[in-house]
Amino acid sequence: MKILILGGGAAGGTAAQFARKSDRKAEITIIDSEPYGQYSRCGLPYALRGMVDDEGLIEFSPEWFGKNRIEALYGWKAVSVDFNERKAIIERDGEKREMEYDRLIIATGARPWAPPIKGIDVEGIFYLRTLDDLKRAKEYAKGIEKALIVGAGLIGLESAESLKEMGKEVTVVEFLPAPLLAMFDQDMAGLVADILERNGIKALYGHEVLLIEGDPVSSVIARDRNTGEERRMEAEMVIIATGNVPYTEIFEGIEKGPKGHIKVNERAETSVPGVYAAGDCTEFTDAITGQRVPMGMGTMAVRLGMAAGVNAAGGELEVQPYLGTRTTDLFGVKMAAVGPTEHTVKSAGLEYVSAKYTGDTVPEYMKGEKFTVKVIASKPDGKVMGAQIVGKCAPWRISMFAEAISTGDTVHHLSMLETPYSPVIAPTLDPTSIACTMASMKLRRRR
Amino acid sequence: MKILILGGGAAGGTAAQFARKSDRKAEITIIDSEPYGQYSRCGLPYALRGMVDDEGLIEFSPEWFGKNRIEALYGWKAVSVDFNERKAIIERDGEKREMEYDRLIIATGARPWAPPIKGIDVEGIFYLRTLDDLKRAKEYAKGIEKALIVGAGLIGLESAESLKEMGKEVTVVEFLPAPLLAMFDQDMAGLVADILERNGIKALYGHEVLLIEGDPVSSVIARDRNTGEERRMEAEMVIIATGNVPYTEIFEGIEKGPKGHIKVNERAETSVPGVYAAGDCTEFTDAITGQRVPMGMGTMAVRLGMAAGVNAAGGELEVQPYLGTRTTDLFGVKMAAVGPTEHTVKSAGLEYVSAKYTGDTVPEYMKGEKFTVKVIASKPDGKVMGAQIVGKCAPWRISMFAEAISTGDTVHHLSMLETPYSPVIAPTLDPTSIACTMASMKLRRRR
Repeated sequence: MKILILGGGAAGGTAAQFARKSDRKAEITIIDSEPYGQYSRCGLPYALRGMVDDEGLIEFSPEWFGKNRIEALYGWKAVSVDFNERKAIIERDGEKREMEYDRLIIATGARPWAPPIKGIDVEGIFYLRTLDDLKRAKEYAKGIEKALIVGAGLIGLESAESLKEMGKEVTVVEFLPAPLLAMFDQDMAGLVADILERNGIKALYGHEVLLIEGDPVSSVIARDRNTGEERRMEAEMVIIATGNVPYTEIFEGIEKGPKGHIKVNERAETSVPGVYAAGDCTEFTDAITGQRVPMGMGTMAVRLGMAAGVNAAGGELEVQPYLGTRTTDLFGVKMAAVGPTEHTVKSAGLEYVSAKYTGDTVPEYMKGEKFTVKVIASKPDGKVMGAQIVGKCAPWRISMFAEAISTGDTVHHLSMLETPYSPVIAPTLDPTSIACTMASMKLRRRR
Repeated sequence: MKILILGGGAAGGTAAQFARKSDRKAEITIIDSEPYGQYSRCGLPYALRGMVDDEGLIEFSPEWFGKNRIEALYGWKAVSVDFNERKAIIERDGEKREMEYDRLIIATGARPWAPPIKGIDVEGIFYLRTLDDLKRAKEYAKGIEKALIVGAGLIGLESAESLKEMGKEVTVVEFLPAPLLAMFDQDMAGLVADILERNGIKALYGHEVLLIEGDPVSSVIARDRNTGEERRMEAEMVIIATGNVPYTEIFEGIEKGPKGHIKVNERAETSVPGVYAAGDCTEFTDAITGQRVPMGMGTMAVRLGMAAGVNAAGGELEVQPYLGTRTTDLFGVKMAAVGPTEHTVKSAGLEYVSAKYTGDTVPEYMKGEKFTVKVIASKPDGKVMGAQIVGKCAPWRISMFAEAISTGDTVHHLSMLETPYSPVIAPTLDPTSIACTMASMKLRRRR
């Protein structure tokens, strides 16, 4: 059995590992355009400020793959695949090779999307997608004082945090009216905006970057999308964090979504027999809306990679529908979400109620911190659709909501869950329980 | 509608509040032998070292109840109840009163169990059950250097931690072979023993206290239950934390368990029509074993109190079967568990598998901390029965397991849950997921 894996990131590397675990004899080959082995892209913003060494991000080295009898061809890139003949053509420095396979796993990932900004190709403009991107950005950052980030998504804000911690003046420009709108509704995103402001990040929301001036870059001009007012900001370095496009152009005759993501099912199978896909180049089914959505998170890259590897090797592993569990920590404040936002649920035409509650992390008498939780529940059945939390211990309270969505639990039932309690840990009635009770009461009133 | 509530602790106080919410017109009366209103007993070990003021533990004052039109008779104690006539006799300083009711809620709680130790009634021996107990112990602790705790349960260890933080020499003597054995199996309890040792707590496990010497106490003699060897330890203060007995002797003609706990169902109903019970004086059904177990945790006191209050007032609220979610923090290490231990599951004659895994709180490259998770799953169906965690963020990882048990989820399914991931939060494959996978594989192998 020959298993060929195109791409050696989190999805492809994980697929190789799980294929190896499932079939000790299979010939497994990874094609990777980069030379580093499997490393963490999500760690790049943290390596920027040196929380981890650049090379420290490498989780599985080329040697590791060698030891596990996984052949890895570094510096090579797939240029075409003949799905009928089960052959791929790969290329390095003009040299071409033909690779036969029995099973193919596509894990080619994505590349940064560059918005149509005039002057975007000058010196001082960076993306944080690869280890090489990081090395260049890190070196360049040494000589500058004013940085500007385009895009207030997770990577953008984590990079902004790092640059701020490195002592830079940091401005973030976001097209949408608030930060992290893929993760939070605008009310919750407002809490994130407050955190950024308190920590000295200048942010312009609802602004479109029109022009990058100078080469190397010296300033950026952005326009307020409401008022039309234009504003020039000094910037010696710009990081573009406006999302990615899947690297799937070379694949023809395979079902793709509207933005080019390869469609996969719960077994990581594509529309072509014997061909699997995983990671940022794929789209998969959302647990709540039932719609296909692009997979852009490491969590799903690993899980789809596991399924692709196991199933390609003849095993049996299914991935659960996409929940969109996501989390980060910005300036010491944790935040997390699971499921679609209220905005997305409404756009999908689904009936729902939502409830929001701000409460204490520990019993009031222990003087802990406040945190805010928002829960979204399906109407009329009360099934948990999503939750958003800003504040201490957000991620792990979100894991409870993730499990609730995954099992089809309702806010009625979840509101009575026996949550962990101790004066030094959490209140007897956790704010998450109270938010569920509030949603439950809204549903009962509307019956 | 007259609702009479015997006991104003977490269970009785909560019952009163929820009865008031459910029926704005009901006449609600609480009888409480203590004068403080509703306060947190679980907070007593923390008040001992001044993390919170004594009076700060009061969560709902007598004035608060007054404002909510809940009559509270402080200093009174129930002496008998006639369930047929629906009348209770209460007493204060020899004065007796007859109280009629339509609905009765028994929330009389429990009192400390004093082991049969010679000399246990001398000066310097304390319990930490009431606010008055606390005040006396706190005052006495000022003048001593060597403290000894009998019992290594939650209250015992939290008190030991406090006394240590206050600069005392602290010895803990536990009858069983390890600490916290109601919460953890012996392997996990070993991790707790390590934490105590690292933090300078002297502990003797598998030791029985035979004799308390001196008045005021000057030393304690304990015997090794294995070797029979006796040992004298100097102690100027002893805290007895060996559990409680329910305060239910006065209730006749109501179904009770073997240790006197009043049996309740999911609506907090007792065997007597119109009579509800909640809190430490009750026993309720365990979700996994199906056996009735005494309720001794604040979490359940509040939830049964809610159900008792709502249902007594004519509403409708059900409590979920008992999970035994419990957690604490000892010397900065968090720990939590849910469900019966492996030991309990085995004793109940249930078929199970267990798996244990020690992994990283964050991706390895971010250099976080290790934590250990143990999961117990039903055989052959794989349903989650219990989980135990020692280490950072234990409580909230346990809430996910609590939700899994509560919804009947399996380790097969839970192992693939999309858990929160970020370099600064958790690995892509959380150690909890890996432990579930290990249990899942054991089950599949044995099919």
